[in-house]
Amino acid sequence: MILSHIIELVAICAKKGIKNVILSPGSRCAPLTLAFARHPDIHTRTISDERSAAFIALGMAQQLEEPVALVCTSGSAALNYFPAVAEAFFQQIPLLLITADRPNEWIDQYDGQTIFQEGVYGKHVKGSFQFPNSIGTEDDSWLAARVSNEAINLSKQYPCGPVHLNIPLKEPFYPTEGESIHFPGKPRVFNQLSSKVLLSDESFAKLKSRLGAVKRMLVIVGQQRPNPEIQNLLNSLSDTHQVVFVSDCIGNMQSDKSITFHDHWLGIPQLNSNLAPDLIISFGKSIISKALKLFLRSTKASHWHIQEDGNAKDTFQRLTRILPTHPMVFFKWLSGNLQPQNLEFYQAWHSLELKVKNKLPMVLNQVDFGEYSALHAALQTSPKQAKIHVANSMSVRYLNFLGAREQEVCCNRGTSGIDGSSSTAVGCTFTTKELVTLVTGDMAFFYDRNAFWHNYAMPNLRIILLNNHAGGIFRIIKGPSEQPELEEFFETKQKLSAQHLATEFGFFYTKVVNSEELDASLVDFYQESLHPKILEIETESELNTSILKAIKDQISNSLME
Amino acid sequence: MILSHIIELVAICAKKGIKNVILSPGSRCAPLTLAFARHPDIHTRTISDERSAAFIALGMAQQLEEPVALVCTSGSAALNYFPAVAEAFFQQIPLLLITADRPNEWIDQYDGQTIFQEGVYGKHVKGSFQFPNSIGTEDDSWLAARVSNEAINLSKQYPCGPVHLNIPLKEPFYPTEGESIHFPGKPRVFNQLSSKVLLSDESFAKLKSRLGAVKRMLVIVGQQRPNPEIQNLLNSLSDTHQVVFVSDCIGNMQSDKSITFHDHWLGIPQLNSNLAPDLIISFGKSIISKALKLFLRSTKASHWHIQEDGNAKDTFQRLTRILPTHPMVFFKWLSGNLQPQNLEFYQAWHSLELKVKNKLPMVLNQVDFGEYSALHAALQTSPKQAKIHVANSMSVRYLNFLGAREQEVCCNRGTSGIDGSSSTAVGCTFTTKELVTLVTGDMAFFYDRNAFWHNYAMPNLRIILLNNHAGGIFRIIKGPSEQPELEEFFETKQKLSAQHLATEFGFFYTKVVNSEELDASLVDFYQESLHPKILEIETESELNTSILKAIKDQISNSLME
Repeated sequence: MILSHIIELVAICAKKGIKNVILSPGSRCAPLTLAFARHPDIHTRTISDERSAAFIALGMAQQLEEPVALVCTSGSAALNYFPAVAEAFFQQIPLLLITADRPNEWIDQYDGQTIFQEGVYGKHVKGSFQFPNSIGTEDDSWLAARVSNEAINLSKQYPCGPVHLNIPLKEPFYPTEGESIHFPGKPRVFNQLSSKVLLSDESFAKLKSRLGAVKRMLVIVGQQRPNPEIQNLLNSLSDTHQVVFVSDCIGNMQSDKSITFHDHWLGIPQLNSNLAPDLIISFGKSIISKALKLFLRSTKASHWHIQEDGNAKDTFQRLTRILPTHPMVFFKWLSGNLQPQNLEFYQAWHSLELKVKNKLPMVLNQVDFGEYSALHAALQTSPKQAKIHVANSMSVRYLNFLGAREQEVCCNRGTSGIDGSSSTAVGCTFTTKELVTLVTGDMAFFYDRNAFWHNYAMPNLRIILLNNHAGGIFRIIKGPSEQPELEEFFETKQKLSAQHLATEFGFFYTKVVNSEELDASLVDFYQESLHPKILEIETESELNTSILKAIKDQISNSLME
Repeated sequence: MILSHIIELVAICAKKGIKNVILSPGSRCAPLTLAFARHPDIHTRTISDERSAAFIALGMAQQLEEPVALVCTSGSAALNYFPAVAEAFFQQIPLLLITADRPNEWIDQYDGQTIFQEGVYGKHVKGSFQFPNSIGTEDDSWLAARVSNEAINLSKQYPCGPVHLNIPLKEPFYPTEGESIHFPGKPRVFNQLSSKVLLSDESFAKLKSRLGAVKRMLVIVGQQRPNPEIQNLLNSLSDTHQVVFVSDCIGNMQSDKSITFHDHWLGIPQLNSNLAPDLIISFGKSIISKALKLFLRSTKASHWHIQEDGNAKDTFQRLTRILPTHPMVFFKWLSGNLQPQNLEFYQAWHSLELKVKNKLPMVLNQVDFGEYSALHAALQTSPKQAKIHVANSMSVRYLNFLGAREQEVCCNRGTSGIDGSSSTAVGCTFTTKELVTLVTGDMAFFYDRNAFWHNYAMPNLRIILLNNHAGGIFRIIKGPSEQPELEEFFETKQKLSAQHLATEFGFFYTKVVNSEELDASLVDFYQESLHPKILEIETESELNTSILKAIKDQISNSLME
């Protein structure tokens, strides 16, 4: 017998627009599994490793911009969700974490799979809700329906995020023979209507009075999905008002007007003389470029951050105002209230941008074969309508060196972990027919290899694996590279190649060790396929380090000319 | 420059007997990594996947019965420890979780790898300590040294468990060129002396007055490591006083006197007529046998539980007294204060035990080839001086059907998850030259395959992999086996074999699909080797189910004769 409050929960989810659920196998969660699997409007998939399951759900919710639900059994299953929960929290991605639990009275009694699940995600969820321990009265049933609504509403409110719903369940877990599940046509639903936050007239007046003195405005685009409207507004602010805007690859500004090669010069003080803004305006989430952050912290600029709700971050240690509104609203207003900005300032940024943009491809074509130039080449032939998922550590740094892309770029910069990059890309493939290209290093790739341990097709997945058999980033940082412990404890040398994994999971696999092999492999890498394809670019960590240095030197020399 | 308080922490760890540290790579944790790696009395290993790293540390600490330290970088790394942290908490295994963190002021500022690390393990650690944000004064330094002592002391106090030490660190993370680390000869150390807890005379008097009426005493041995002293005491209580004692395989009672086949009859009411105790006395941790738990809950017995400290569990819903002392102390006293127990009661238990013990091997030798009989055969030839690690779900159930073993049996029954069984066994291999045999199913094995992703030799590891390409337990439970969703959402069919994994990691590999192949492979399976060996026993889930049923029927028929 499946309990009516579980059936109603599933009906509420469907009514409130949850269309995708990732299940992980278990017995305690069986009523949830069965009810979700049998609901006609909900698509379920099952993923055995809960760590991957949660990152897969995150990868889906990121694209769909709606909550994806997760269902797991009691005990440590819920803890395996946690890395993805934290990522979702900081990246503001809506997830509904449904964890089956034993009834309260059986927690911590040396009897089966229990941990302390209630509130286990602490500060890393927007809210934590507990279903009634059993459904004895109408009030219990009302509570269950109510918190189901509250949890889903909360996950979708700005800033979106993960919400936890812990559900004690008693046996029986399974329908009796011949029993079918009847979903209520009208489950108890309350939706929160959408709203918009506008600055008060007083606030606009304050901003306007300050704007008169602003001559060097720098807009910083934090992590966001591609947003053509904002893009157009910023383009026109750039054209008409000489506002400079800077975007890392995860800011997804796919335009000639944005500064995207800043990582090449902001670390070099001689090149930054005319670049300091007097006002920084930012929106979106995190920034990759350490040089950009250090540069802005060194300026005397004021900083206004735009976000509708939630705690603003003082990433540049210059925060002076928080503007609780949508960036679109603000930039529209700004275009009617700003004086043209200093032209030298504008030209200083854009002339550096243009130089790198022209020089970098030439330099990359001339250097020895290494992962930097190989990645450049491998992405050159990518179709424009595609997504790029990039793992943390060196992969995302290389991508950021390579400037603006036409494809959407996704990266787990909420916690900046390597733990779920592959799973997140897998989740993305479930939401689109476009190609999803995962750019990853060997450490991130093998760490999260359970991303591929399931039975669902991913014909649109392409993997560019930069395999230098180590955490190459540690050779590039000055500190660890000087330690005798470098290879064992920092790089953590490992000899694996993706070949066995490819055979095991039925992926197409090509390994390349030079430009000729790379060019040959790229001829059909992005072509349609029934199975994922792995392009393993094998290089040496030491050589990559010297090549990276040579490229940097060439670029900085050309900028100083 | 490595800060002096980090150097002192490492010196304190060494002085207080921490000899093993599992490191995971990262930059924020570099000062800890370097200081631990360079200490002459501490053995460090590096494991890249923190989920595995923590279970490996747990597997080591379980054997060593002393804290093993873990070191990870900031961000989601700490969250990947969490499944093992919960297991260690409920299994009372001492771990020192050292997590590097960014300084407080940089948490949640969209700047690098941060989460809310302080107190993140909630109720699943014995304590949570925070290092000072920076070391500005002597008091800061004193605080750091003090909480280092407190954390280690706490992890070692009964009941042992995991303790969290969160350490904010600022750059620079690395020693300057030519700088070497000098450990203080006398770091600030305070040790807690050992103590013993004795019942008061008044308590003994109370127990004695109650004992007069006890005729059917049943001692239940919860999970514990082999303990020859307790074993001998219980043996003699059995001989001289007809006390019955029951132990699952994880109770590690390696004796003829203990009841270990109880799973074969306690689920059959007709066979239980003369088995009900009037007093249950328990010690140790959890019980596997569901039949045993249900049987004891159905009795009218009182229940005394013996443990020195901490919250006792009421596993059988009959708890009447908690005896805060060591089981040895209690059983010694009991042997001088107990009347001989009812002989019929004693014989009823032992006659069932004897019947199964004689019958089961014959039945197993006659049935079709399946994982149950194959596991029996595979363990028959194991050397006596060895450890058996067994994964949760079906593996541990089969092992419990097979009765007492001469080898120590370990299983993660704290949370009963499948998530770290392999890693825990790997940790065990680092502590002993004896063979460590991991008995696991395909779901647990592939879930935790990163257990093997490191560069350390495990010549004494043997893996018996029961591969039925699914979570076979769901076919054996009545509920899910009747659902149309069985294969996709419960069993989660998966087609992998361990062959590719074996090639990838350089393990010896044999697959067997019948008795002849199994017998042939066992000839040298336990022989010395430079590399781990995998014996993959491939069977069909449906066939296993029918064989299990046939065996159960034969055994219960023979018991009812």
